[in-house]
Amino acid sequence: MTTLLTNAWVLTLDDAMTQHERGWVHIEGDTIVALGSGAPPDIPGAEAVDCDGDIVMPGMVNTHCHMGMSVFRGLGEDVDDRLYRYILPLERKFVTAAMVRAGSALSALEMIQGGVTTVADMYYFETEVGRVAAEAGLRAIVGQTLADFDPPDHKDFDQGFARVEELVDAFAGHPLVTPSIAPHAPYSTGLKVMERVAQWSADHPDVPVQMHLAESTLEVNWARDTHGKSTVAVTRDAGLLKPNLICAHCLQLDDADITMMSEHQVCAVTNPRSNGKAGRGIAPVEKLRNAGIPVGIGSDGAMSGNTLDLFSQFAPVSMFAKLLGGSRKPLPAVEVVRMATIEGARALSLNLKTGSLESGKQADLTRVSLAAERLHPIYDPYSMLVFAALPSDVTDTMVAGRWLMRDRQVLTLDRKKTLRDALQIARTFKAEMIRIDEEKS
Amino acid sequence: MTTLLTNAWVLTLDDAMTQHERGWVHIEGDTIVALGSGAPPDIPGAEAVDCDGDIVMPGMVNTHCHMGMSVFRGLGEDVDDRLYRYILPLERKFVTAAMVRAGSALSALEMIQGGVTTVADMYYFETEVGRVAAEAGLRAIVGQTLADFDPPDHKDFDQGFARVEELVDAFAGHPLVTPSIAPHAPYSTGLKVMERVAQWSADHPDVPVQMHLAESTLEVNWARDTHGKSTVAVTRDAGLLKPNLICAHCLQLDDADITMMSEHQVCAVTNPRSNGKAGRGIAPVEKLRNAGIPVGIGSDGAMSGNTLDLFSQFAPVSMFAKLLGGSRKPLPAVEVVRMATIEGARALSLNLKTGSLESGKQADLTRVSLAAERLHPIYDPYSMLVFAALPSDVTDTMVAGRWLMRDRQVLTLDRKKTLRDALQIARTFKAEMIRIDEEKS
Repeated sequence: MTTLLTNAWVLTLDDAMTQHERGWVHIEGDTIVALGSGAPPDIPGAEAVDCDGDIVMPGMVNTHCHMGMSVFRGLGEDVDDRLYRYILPLERKFVTAAMVRAGSALSALEMIQGGVTTVADMYYFETEVGRVAAEAGLRAIVGQTLADFDPPDHKDFDQGFARVEELVDAFAGHPLVTPSIAPHAPYSTGLKVMERVAQWSADHPDVPVQMHLAESTLEVNWARDTHGKSTVAVTRDAGLLKPNLICAHCLQLDDADITMMSEHQVCAVTNPRSNGKAGRGIAPVEKLRNAGIPVGIGSDGAMSGNTLDLFSQFAPVSMFAKLLGGSRKPLPAVEVVRMATIEGARALSLNLKTGSLESGKQADLTRVSLAAERLHPIYDPYSMLVFAALPSDVTDTMVAGRWLMRDRQVLTLDRKKTLRDALQIARTFKAEMIRIDEEKS
Repeated sequence: MTTLLTNAWVLTLDDAMTQHERGWVHIEGDTIVALGSGAPPDIPGAEAVDCDGDIVMPGMVNTHCHMGMSVFRGLGEDVDDRLYRYILPLERKFVTAAMVRAGSALSALEMIQGGVTTVADMYYFETEVGRVAAEAGLRAIVGQTLADFDPPDHKDFDQGFARVEELVDAFAGHPLVTPSIAPHAPYSTGLKVMERVAQWSADHPDVPVQMHLAESTLEVNWARDTHGKSTVAVTRDAGLLKPNLICAHCLQLDDADITMMSEHQVCAVTNPRSNGKAGRGIAPVEKLRNAGIPVGIGSDGAMSGNTLDLFSQFAPVSMFAKLLGGSRKPLPAVEVVRMATIEGARALSLNLKTGSLESGKQADLTRVSLAAERLHPIYDPYSMLVFAALPSDVTDTMVAGRWLMRDRQVLTLDRKKTLRDALQIARTFKAEMIRIDEEKS
């Protein structure tokens, strides 16, 4: 399969930040073989796509998500104790492989529609998430969560590790889906289990480790009260603060934590909408990046952040950095787009495969239409992407040379069935919420 | 002209926050005559519109905009001194009646597409803005700006007041367009001119007064250094802190300022994207509202906020309040939607005419499609509007019973010509920016 995109405004996101204003991209199979400006090459038999001057850029990398949770989208909004009031009881009662499958399909649909081509996920029944990602054609790191709060798919950590092993076996050698182990957070696994994960990880060096880190004051207080140190320090003591550890949230950090994270070469994810909506604070993104830590952007689950595209995160990422800095200068728009693409790929250790448009890399890309008047004039394409573009401006999404969406039509998922399955689960949740509210009142 | 909307999820935004899940709205001429649930009335000759279960809600009220400035959208992004480096020189050189007309048309187009039905504007050559609003069919308060920094349409304040008089004459008795006087800000007009505005305003009680207030530390420092008090106190001393004064930004306020504003019954506007992007801080929206001050949401100009719909402002308004409060609870989603509609109308003293769907009020409304999977499931429609909906979900917009957009087709403006005119101006700006950058380097 050969594809030739022509007449595109190509933002490569390579090291030189090369742009081709009247550009072309030549794809063979799953790989970009060449790209450039000016007259496109003549490639007999190629599928030729005239992009009409639209933006063609790397597909975006959503570095932290809980795909199964889209069926919880906006549930218990504005309720401070919603985790214990609604979410954990609902999860214990209703989270099954089928529910995870339905939620993950709805999430995959939304991400493809919004130009996301790679996602790092962690949840329960994660083998199902991997299957949905594979069918949808998304590149994904799928992490089986381990936690001590009676989660829906393991009664104890032995069962949890068995889930991990099952996941690793299911996707060994898969071209798109990478299995991962995901201890939920320091406070919800504890030092001993983190040590066990660290040891398991040493025996499985190719399996990425993801965890929530320094997300809440609850966690910070736990670390101080239980271990007399920061949650980052506890993670280090467990031997888990290792190169390429994917740390989500990274909110409650002091300078010593950031130094420690940098020395141990971990990677970070910021989830601005999720954290902002929870009133939890603003992540020190500039400090993390200045310490040499790659920082990706994550949507978090739709329960917390509502939407799973990265456009929705752009203005918050930017505004939060500028508010912390008290100036327009911090984190320019171009850096936000880097974080959403090549830097996000680096945060997932996938930067040799994806995150920029360069010959030899996987053909993971998205086309952003410039038809909407709202996007114009365009003095700088990165500013336009960060502050004016919407996920609905994405018209086409490709992963590994395969079109997942053409002209707003998703090709790999059944939209009607996906929505129907999710709405059926939501009806069950609504009934249970009414029951909970009546019981509490 | 009679219109009957049926099969709509009607959010009325009336005092009781009535919703009609399978609702209908009956419109005669420019007025809502009835609305309700269940079987719609039989109205022979009415244009019947089946809304297919979509949301029908009051059109949104953009309480602070500079419509002429959309041609500056995203210009000088991330540059701290962009006001003095680019904007003021470009404004002095290129802002003409024709430029304001082109910029305002692009802005009107975007607002109609995003479900805005009322806008409060302030800029130069404001008579042109009023003309564009009238032609586009938008409800508008159009304020002629007065400023001392050599603005493009008046050399001194006498000329400025002459512009105001011209504007008032042009729109006396207009059904949609209300002329307004807009002293730029305390620091850029000064005590004497604010006193003159207060006196002029006393002689013209029907002409709304708009101004920027407490927007920046520059302004706060000016007030303290020049007058030894807060910028709000200086405004009060000038006699300008009067009932219904429309105060934009309201960022750098202490508790005494808020008490003073409340005692003088002024109205406030918050511009979260504009202020956040500038790194200027977070407005005390909850404190203002708790003091009984109505707070509308404003986009600011596209130079500062990039987009002119209110959906783009929703998550920032919400997150900023929750971050200030350190919890999920402050400013629930439903309150954000109130601010964008009925409370915004109150902030502009237009709440008897618009801002909610009630019989006897003007038929200013918008339809939000629920077709996108990204919006589902919907546990609460206000949460969905605030955290998941996009301006591109708006399909229809009506002002005073007239469709301005049907099925995403804007009926009152020529999209192609509007964009062409704006892009032509942008080319001039780009050339001048290159010249400025070369001169400075």
